[in-house]
Amino acid sequence: MPRTSDKRERLIEAANNLIHRQGFHKTTLADIATESDVPLGNVYYYFKTKEEICDAVIEERKKELTTTLDDCCQSANPKKALLKLLNTTMEASNEIAETGCPHGRLCNELSNEIIGLTNSADDCLKVLLEWSRDQFKAMGYRNAKDMSFEFVSRIQGIILVGNSLHDEKQIKAQLKSLINWVESLDSKNKERRVALN
Amino acid sequence: MPRTSDKRERLIEAANNLIHRQGFHKTTLADIATESDVPLGNVYYYFKTKEEICDAVIEERKKELTTTLDDCCQSANPKKALLKLLNTTMEASNEIAETGCPHGRLCNELSNEIIGLTNSADDCLKVLLEWSRDQFKAMGYRNAKDMSFEFVSRIQGIILVGNSLHDEKQIKAQLKSLINWVESLDSKNKERRVALN
Repeated sequence: MPRTSDKRERLIEAANNLIHRQGFHKTTLADIATESDVPLGNVYYYFKTKEEICDAVIEERKKELTTTLDDCCQSANPKKALLKLLNTTMEASNEIAETGCPHGRLCNELSNEIIGLTNSADDCLKVLLEWSRDQFKAMGYRNAKDMSFEFVSRIQGIILVGNSLHDEKQIKAQLKSLINWVESLDSKNKERRVALN
Repeated sequence: MPRTSDKRERLIEAANNLIHRQGFHKTTLADIATESDVPLGNVYYYFKTKEEICDAVIEERKKELTTTLDDCCQSANPKKALLKLLNTTMEASNEIAETGCPHGRLCNELSNEIIGLTNSADDCLKVLLEWSRDQFKAMGYRNAKDMSFEFVSRIQGIILVGNSLHDEKQIKAQLKSLINWVESLDSKNKERRVALN
């Protein structure tokens, strides 16, 4: 991996990759030290426990996600913002088929336990839910919260099943189907429930 | 837990619960021994490694899932079979909000690694995909494979996000939305793509 000048950043980057690839429980501080090329003795100077470094990883992921979502909002049109997010996801189909979604995986791994994190494993999902709720709301939907849950859970489901089967073609087909759904939504028709009903 | 007469069965049952609750990597053979009340020394008589017991767990889960799916087919009407599966899932909303889906979690945990299992972590997802494909096919849909992927990934997405947020209300609302979609499908209209398009 390319070395950054800051050891703390390198540790977080390595932990981020390892937690994504092999999960939180399987990843050890020694793994993180090796991956980041920082001596294990030095790791403790920055992070006392694996939980502390996982907290920093979640913090970093929230920042990255917020930047991606801000970028999707550049057009100042909520429908286009939702579509841009789906297209960005579509572009990553190959990577998704290989390794899945870092946010979804961490949620799935840690949803049933309390491991003493300051941040919560589901923080990124919440950021995504709130952002998409804001888009549906801006489009005039009264049930924006339900729609955002549907939007995010569909994306997560496509990624989970697509990654499990390593099926890039299906990931693309299902995301296209979701894009068609968003495109079919009418900003003016405030009363309309999702296309499903 | 209620004791069964057979130690092997007790070990598999304990491993099944632990792998669901805390994941494969975190679960140790010692945990399984304690949970099943079988002395650790005896565990090795039945299973040499954690991978072997995980294989037996997947085998057991496949059997249970097949029984559930066979039960859904009792009515001999594919649309009703799909609806029965959704209603059965709906009845488990509370448990899902608490602990999620055992199949989805294992897939998510093991999708990026090879750990020497005879069965594959995604076997149960495949069983579910094949079964639902058969239902859509029996309803006359030519794109039954795509529809089954959509059907299963929506269920998995609802469970992943609902469990992460421990939101039973949303799990029910989203499953209801999926039920409405299946109910809206017309067995006679062979050309119709999913309601999304």
